[in-house]
Amino acid sequence: MGVVRAASADADRSPKQDRSRATRRRLLEAAVACLAERGWSGSTVAVVAERAGVTRGAAQHHFPTREDLFTAAVEHVAEEWLTTIRRRERPLAPSGPDRTRAVVELLVEVFTGELFRAALHLWVAAADEPGLRPRVAALEGRIGREAHRVAVELLEADESAPGVRETVQGTLDMARGLGLATLLRDDTARRTAVVAQWSRVLQATLRA
Amino acid sequence: MGVVRAASADADRSPKQDRSRATRRRLLEAAVACLAERGWSGSTVAVVAERAGVTRGAAQHHFPTREDLFTAAVEHVAEEWLTTIRRRERPLAPSGPDRTRAVVELLVEVFTGELFRAALHLWVAAADEPGLRPRVAALEGRIGREAHRVAVELLEADESAPGVRETVQGTLDMARGLGLATLLRDDTARRTAVVAQWSRVLQATLRA
Repeated sequence: MGVVRAASADADRSPKQDRSRATRRRLLEAAVACLAERGWSGSTVAVVAERAGVTRGAAQHHFPTREDLFTAAVEHVAEEWLTTIRRRERPLAPSGPDRTRAVVELLVEVFTGELFRAALHLWVAAADEPGLRPRVAALEGRIGREAHRVAVELLEADESAPGVRETVQGTLDMARGLGLATLLRDDTARRTAVVAQWSRVLQATLRA
Repeated sequence: MGVVRAASADADRSPKQDRSRATRRRLLEAAVACLAERGWSGSTVAVVAERAGVTRGAAQHHFPTREDLFTAAVEHVAEEWLTTIRRRERPLAPSGPDRTRAVVELLVEVFTGELFRAALHLWVAAADEPGLRPRVAALEGRIGREAHRVAVELLEADESAPGVRETVQGTLDMARGLGLATLLRDDTARRTAVVAQWSRVLQATLRA
């Protein structure tokens, strides 16, 4: 009978867990949108809960503090970011200038979307919030390492060759800088030209 | 007699103008430090006036609104930035790899200091403040064009050659991305390696 009760409790718990996961996801997505649109100062647990259509109590059950919510939100951003990149890995052209350019475009694209905008707000807020700073710094370090690993893989770069590691890192820094440039205005035309030229230089440098 | 009065008023005005200029400068410098340390949400005219040792009334005489004060502050940042760069122009090595590296170091340096940190806070705040956004976007555009012009000049780059303009722009984007990376932690070792490698690539690309 104990077994039967446990099994029944299990069957019972599953939809609850699904609901809980869905609530958590809604909160994280609302938190990202809120950060991207209103910045850190306009982003509180109450504002995010309302936007997600969740009670404040339920939000606090998932994320006891504002710092918990927004660090988890940017972690969620990072996971989405990596999933986006990996999903695109398949249709890339074989090695050559076309592949290099497609990879640079891909890297720049993820640094110019809503996800990066939200992350940027969190980075800047963390610079002034001692309670947030170490968590965001650790998260940023993890994202940087992962982004680097993915970039090396997609570019099929040989990091044992001198300068290759730093060239790939410089490419990610450039992508970050281009993301910053889109914060206030449409920078598409300039960005397209920079990406095309950078891809040529990168191709020549990586295959030298 | 009208002439004498005017002349006397002039002589009288001069030290007053000096005091006024000094007050304005103190306010701008306090505003930059305040933005860099406390972000937009912690930066009000009252906080800046107190920091500068100026009455709130005197601060508002110079800058009627918070937007006026902080846009002027970042304009001041930009002027300092350009002065710093121009002051260094003289002792640069003649054309060659050493000069290229010195220029890249110089560009990256100005994007990793307190001035850039303050500008970054203003950029991010402006993204969410409709009253601030067009002014900061115009200012950012002007700084971008000036930085580009100075970079071309110092690198002695020939912009009539294909790709050179975009290579220089990509270098400035990379410098901006490196600045962002220093926001939360000491990134010096990684940055030094990226700068060294990018200087080699840039030298080869510009002289190709």
